[in-house]
Amino acid sequence: MTNKTPVITCRAAIAWTTNAPLTIEKVEVDPPKAGEVRIKIISSGICDTNKHILEGKDKVPFPAIWGHEGAGTVESIGEGVTILMFPLPECRECSSCLHPKSNFCLKERLVSISLTFFHPIYGTSRFTCRGRKIYHLYGTSTFTEYTVVHEIAVGKIDDDAPMDTVCILSCEVPTGFGAVFNIAKVRMFTPGSTCVVFGLGGIGSAVVMACKASGASRIIGVDIKEEKFPRARTLGVTDCLNPQKLKKPVQEVVVEMTGKGADFAFEAIGLIDTMVATLESCHPSYGVGVIIGLAPTNSQLIFDPMLLLSGRTLKGGALGSESCIPKMVTDYLQKKINLDPLITHTLPFESINKAFELLQGGYW
Amino acid sequence: MTNKTPVITCRAAIAWTTNAPLTIEKVEVDPPKAGEVRIKIISSGICDTNKHILEGKDKVPFPAIWGHEGAGTVESIGEGVTILMFPLPECRECSSCLHPKSNFCLKERLVSISLTFFHPIYGTSRFTCRGRKIYHLYGTSTFTEYTVVHEIAVGKIDDDAPMDTVCILSCEVPTGFGAVFNIAKVRMFTPGSTCVVFGLGGIGSAVVMACKASGASRIIGVDIKEEKFPRARTLGVTDCLNPQKLKKPVQEVVVEMTGKGADFAFEAIGLIDTMVATLESCHPSYGVGVIIGLAPTNSQLIFDPMLLLSGRTLKGGALGSESCIPKMVTDYLQKKINLDPLITHTLPFESINKAFELLQGGYW
Repeated sequence: MTNKTPVITCRAAIAWTTNAPLTIEKVEVDPPKAGEVRIKIISSGICDTNKHILEGKDKVPFPAIWGHEGAGTVESIGEGVTILMFPLPECRECSSCLHPKSNFCLKERLVSISLTFFHPIYGTSRFTCRGRKIYHLYGTSTFTEYTVVHEIAVGKIDDDAPMDTVCILSCEVPTGFGAVFNIAKVRMFTPGSTCVVFGLGGIGSAVVMACKASGASRIIGVDIKEEKFPRARTLGVTDCLNPQKLKKPVQEVVVEMTGKGADFAFEAIGLIDTMVATLESCHPSYGVGVIIGLAPTNSQLIFDPMLLLSGRTLKGGALGSESCIPKMVTDYLQKKINLDPLITHTLPFESINKAFELLQGGYW
Repeated sequence: MTNKTPVITCRAAIAWTTNAPLTIEKVEVDPPKAGEVRIKIISSGICDTNKHILEGKDKVPFPAIWGHEGAGTVESIGEGVTILMFPLPECRECSSCLHPKSNFCLKERLVSISLTFFHPIYGTSRFTCRGRKIYHLYGTSTFTEYTVVHEIAVGKIDDDAPMDTVCILSCEVPTGFGAVFNIAKVRMFTPGSTCVVFGLGGIGSAVVMACKASGASRIIGVDIKEEKFPRARTLGVTDCLNPQKLKKPVQEVVVEMTGKGADFAFEAIGLIDTMVATLESCHPSYGVGVIIGLAPTNSQLIFDPMLLLSGRTLKGGALGSESCIPKMVTDYLQKKINLDPLITHTLPFESINKAFELLQGGYW
């Protein structure tokens, strides 16, 4: 089939450089090669990591098509494809995929130091714009009407799933849920855990939802944008803190509020300072800090190792588990989980730069 | 009973300042107060943390009596004492002691930032020398013929235990065993794990023994003192690396040797560089790094948080679990564990500064 499908010309939002709006251009999208599928993108989420890239904090090659939370339909398939639709690549063959505690597939270059060059067919491209090859990003590139991804980067979801909502199940929600259920394993401890969540955006909100589902008795939400607090409380946050209005460092306030420190602390922003605060907010003897925010490229996390010697644990992770995502779509349709509070805006493709403006304004 | 027991005058090795030999002096040791026991010290281990203190890397108050690996007999007891003999204080009442994953008792100030002011009766002293009060250290102070400790800082051991050997069960061996069995939980993963141990001294050797007991198929030992390699191999190390003789950073060599990184990595030295190497030696998706070496006071651990985001875990801990130590003494007597290779020298008390010289020369 590969050779029979034509090049598609469609619109895509191209990032030519940092700190400049994406421009919507006509691009040529190659047919999928063996083991690939070409996707018609219907809806795309916009993740905060894209803002980091726009601002130049995470180094990626240009020009590129960004976006990695995509919902759509298979337009055409390359040879030998047996499994279809939706992200988070797991080869299910490498030492990471075969390990019960891991989700970062080695084969798909998800474990590069920068975490930014996710493309499963790294080194090649299926996009051309004005005669120039355009980079994919995060193995997906969903800010386009059509994209090409590897077959293992898709999963079948319910046909009646509303794509303008479930697209955030590609990254944001499973990253938050995975941090709680798979990495911190909040449920493994006694019900009634105390949790603190730094950042109440999309991922932080998903963390809050998962903490509540895990029976946490107290969930402290931290953000400098107080307009996020009402939603946070609806989702399960019991105490909201704005660090800019506190008289002492937020981690000290959390330690005082919880006696000695939270059982679990989550960093869902991507700032070094809040990563350290996350660790310091944990109970010194058994607290678990989980970093899911993406720090700028080549950042340095700096803290006194004594914070660990008393028994704290510091972990990290992202993207949950691919195999759970289709089930989460079904759970949403069956009203077992509610994604609606996480959808703050729905915009047409032409307004992609308006979406970035909203993101930079804190609407996430 | 407290009021009837007299002050004891005995010899103790006093540290008056950093970077100077301890001096053996006559000291007055007060009777134990309520809840305390006075111990006649028979043998004392000498832990590398004492060297750090001597060199001024860990800040402690002077003058003080050091030593925290002590074996001896109860000389007298304060009122209300119901449980007797041997270290690692656990009150069994605080949130740390009651938590299944914690061993750092909050009540006993074991969770101070510096980890150096361990004395359970902090702020007071039972030692006097030349009319001056002498500090205790680590809640024990075993470099003396008599000491006073809190009742919860002792545990009953077999009467026929050879004290000049089992004294290292106070800190060195349970710290190493605890890192493997309780913190990393090597046994919880598939048998055949790959482990790397930075530092092949006393604690590192105990880590090696525990890794072997946990069924590790490969144990890579790292040290710059090659004279430690024969013992390390005897205990279970399969590959010895001297970083000073490698052409690239040792963590890169470990990653190459193991394919993608070790399942578990342990830092048993207390250096920032090897702590970072420990983390970088781990498998990116599921590797667990455990820091048990004591870094100098106010050290800063610095690394790219991306090392965590792919799924690594960084933990810390020390001292194992108090409740296991009497059982370990019995296990030694029953030849289930062999502590003998860990005893490199046995010296009379008068030679305490010779012991420090040996420690500084790498014989540990």
